[in-house]
Amino acid sequence: MAKELKNLTKRSENYSQWYNELVVKADLAEQADVRGCMVIKPYGYAIWEKIQHILDGKFKETGVQNVYFPMLIPKSFLSKEAEHVEGFAKECAVVTHYRLKANETGDGVVVDPAAKLEEELIIRPTSETTIWNTYRKWIHSWRDLPVLCNQWCNVMRWEMRTRLFLRTSEFLWQEGHTAHATREEAEARAKQMLKVYADFVEQYMAIPLIQGVKSATERFAGALDTYTIEAMMQDGKALQSGTSHFLGQNFGKAFNVQFVDKDNKLDYAWATSWGVSTRLMGALIMTHSDDNGLVLPPHLAPIQVVMIPIYKNGEELAQLDERFNALADRLRARGISVKYDNADNKRPGFKFADYELKGVPVRLAMGARDMAAGTIELMRRDTLEKEVVPFDGIEERIAGLLEEIQQNIFKKAKDFLESHIYPCDNYDDFKARVKDGGFFLCPWDGTAETEAQIKADTQATVRCIPFGYDQSNPGVDMVSGKPAKYRVIVARSY
Amino acid sequence: MAKELKNLTKRSENYSQWYNELVVKADLAEQADVRGCMVIKPYGYAIWEKIQHILDGKFKETGVQNVYFPMLIPKSFLSKEAEHVEGFAKECAVVTHYRLKANETGDGVVVDPAAKLEEELIIRPTSETTIWNTYRKWIHSWRDLPVLCNQWCNVMRWEMRTRLFLRTSEFLWQEGHTAHATREEAEARAKQMLKVYADFVEQYMAIPLIQGVKSATERFAGALDTYTIEAMMQDGKALQSGTSHFLGQNFGKAFNVQFVDKDNKLDYAWATSWGVSTRLMGALIMTHSDDNGLVLPPHLAPIQVVMIPIYKNGEELAQLDERFNALADRLRARGISVKYDNADNKRPGFKFADYELKGVPVRLAMGARDMAAGTIELMRRDTLEKEVVPFDGIEERIAGLLEEIQQNIFKKAKDFLESHIYPCDNYDDFKARVKDGGFFLCPWDGTAETEAQIKADTQATVRCIPFGYDQSNPGVDMVSGKPAKYRVIVARSY
Repeated sequence: MAKELKNLTKRSENYSQWYNELVVKADLAEQADVRGCMVIKPYGYAIWEKIQHILDGKFKETGVQNVYFPMLIPKSFLSKEAEHVEGFAKECAVVTHYRLKANETGDGVVVDPAAKLEEELIIRPTSETTIWNTYRKWIHSWRDLPVLCNQWCNVMRWEMRTRLFLRTSEFLWQEGHTAHATREEAEARAKQMLKVYADFVEQYMAIPLIQGVKSATERFAGALDTYTIEAMMQDGKALQSGTSHFLGQNFGKAFNVQFVDKDNKLDYAWATSWGVSTRLMGALIMTHSDDNGLVLPPHLAPIQVVMIPIYKNGEELAQLDERFNALADRLRARGISVKYDNADNKRPGFKFADYELKGVPVRLAMGARDMAAGTIELMRRDTLEKEVVPFDGIEERIAGLLEEIQQNIFKKAKDFLESHIYPCDNYDDFKARVKDGGFFLCPWDGTAETEAQIKADTQATVRCIPFGYDQSNPGVDMVSGKPAKYRVIVARSY
Repeated sequence: MAKELKNLTKRSENYSQWYNELVVKADLAEQADVRGCMVIKPYGYAIWEKIQHILDGKFKETGVQNVYFPMLIPKSFLSKEAEHVEGFAKECAVVTHYRLKANETGDGVVVDPAAKLEEELIIRPTSETTIWNTYRKWIHSWRDLPVLCNQWCNVMRWEMRTRLFLRTSEFLWQEGHTAHATREEAEARAKQMLKVYADFVEQYMAIPLIQGVKSATERFAGALDTYTIEAMMQDGKALQSGTSHFLGQNFGKAFNVQFVDKDNKLDYAWATSWGVSTRLMGALIMTHSDDNGLVLPPHLAPIQVVMIPIYKNGEELAQLDERFNALADRLRARGISVKYDNADNKRPGFKFADYELKGVPVRLAMGARDMAAGTIELMRRDTLEKEVVPFDGIEERIAGLLEEIQQNIFKKAKDFLESHIYPCDNYDDFKARVKDGGFFLCPWDGTAETEAQIKADTQATVRCIPFGYDQSNPGVDMVSGKPAKYRVIVARSY
């Protein structure tokens, strides 16, 4: 039965299928009845809630306030920023009518042609346009600045090929939109929010990152600069995990958001926007999990410790209940989330496999023999190591172990990332190797032509110009042979 | 300047206008650029977040888990439950296309006729249909039950006449959807969630309620019973503040959600759904606020205490900063949210008026003379009473005062509600008085005809068959003269 429960494709056999199966089998999410959309199930949503809660607190520490703007955007708004419309008009859900009526046979409903909107409305793919159209009313003087707003909401981008969490037509995210009096302040804010993302993803999600700035080709539509955090999945492909955009005065000008500055001169407001989405769930799953199922970082696991009694009769169970419940109380008092699963309609072996599949970081099991010996069996999900330890003082051990697991899976992922970053100056070498995954640190001449050539030849893209790498001597572009401007990370990506 | 800031219409002059102005002037929300939608501003959203946070915890205490279902619903789903389609198909936003393209002149975008959907999609007005279509895949055995899910999301109902928070085309809400093995369990859950709502609204929002069950006419489309909490606004009109529906097996049958029960027989699952929305914000504002602006219950106020220094020079300000910042730390240590406003670009009088308008429960002010005397000025927003009290030990006083204000505004509202409930058996009397507001406790014969007559004559509706009233001798229907089945609450409403 335990085997049936999992029956998970191995990563080495088919990484993509392994992921698709795991998301469903671990009860995180499933395909919805609407094409390209997903149902996020309780266990998956509980992880997303933790992500939301922690990030939200970190945003607020930087002075950001939450707001809510409408999900529908007048079609004409999209056209106001020239690049933005190019980027987002192509794949959006369009509301054209506001009423249904009974059909002629009376057994269904049809669109009421009398209820056609004068101007079509778009379900937000992102909210710069509608927010900046409102900021015009909020911002008049430098005293009104900065404006630091964020919203947690759903957005919609009509995608042709979708995968749960990684790319869905509707997804959940937060989008921050700030307005500033100066270019410097806006640029600093865009970088600050990238750091908030990077710290969160590394410290809570245990995912090591490459941080950097996007090439012009890969920028957000309407941005002057897009900062990005790029994670590496176990197949060596990149997953863009969050972006923060310096938008210059593009939206200030497009929506005529002008303010009187300290010198009493009119200027356009400077903008940033930044977002992370349920895509982070995909990164979380793919970075740490293994052929037995999910591996969750303790900092985000909805259940950090699961406790399973092994008993032959009601008397034994009663004794185990008493011990486990007392231990659960002591663990909860330390802020550790615990599930005691004494359900009698499933066997211990089934439970073991199920919680392994669900990635619970620590499993405790105890039976009559353990009770007699004053011991308990402890299993850590990251390494699957089991040991029998004294029951007394186990709380202390568990608290330490949770931190150890958190650090261990981060280190494991970091070692993997670092051992799959390849300095590469030779295009033939690159072409031969890039399909096997990894981040290639390559000299680039800074032209869109080179990028296009690489993409056409290999499907790989310039992920970013990475921070923290020596750029003093970038070398010679491996495609064009011209002098390189930077070393960039090139990789195939999700 | 302080007067300019407010310039609020008096309630006695025009209650409706007072409300509309207050929502905007207190920076809670404003009209969006899309017809009938709203922008919830930071101060308004901070209150909504508190509501969400507290309610979410209370749901979870009852075993409810959060999930997310798609916002788009296939048109055909709506037709599956016969009453439901009647109630919701008429006023919904319809997505018909999934792409825009550049127009011929190249300066705008038009709907791409090639991107027409085969089946139109509806933006959810509520999610019973899509959720029950999924529950079919989740529920097979009594062991899979109960399913207790909730989601916090946006919904859309195309409204012709809208008012901020009270009735908007898009609004935010939570919708709980549960599935059960027995009728009894589902009915108990519907009642349980009404109690969760009622306790929250009374204890946190300080809004006294009438609880009861809706008449057949006023039920949710598809429900067997709709339980409701009805609040009374200061104009005596009712505001339906939350509902919990016992849906019987209607959705179980419509979506073929069958399970094997304990006796190994197939049965349809029993359902409930329940929701509260940003409409609660309207109830909060209208119940307590006065001609000076908002009055917020301390349990939900984003800022519970504001502190304002009164100074003539930088030296005085430095001394006041020191005292106020130390006090702020002591208050925060008690879990009290504090704002110290020492901004030097606004005068104290302006600040006083602004925080009054924003409904901050307690205001502290201190100047040089207070410092010398060891005193501080304390103002409570609910009564506008000011007093000068010793600075030492002020934390204790404030903690007590916040609770006192919470109780006081609840009592005030409760006295108002109770003194505006009128037993009434005479229809002429009713017709003469109902337009002035109040809840009329009237004998009703239980027929839709009587309800329709009352509505046609007076715009009033049967709000509910109230719990907690003696129904042993309901009397004679005041309209039809037939024997009454119950005494019901009849009132005009929002």
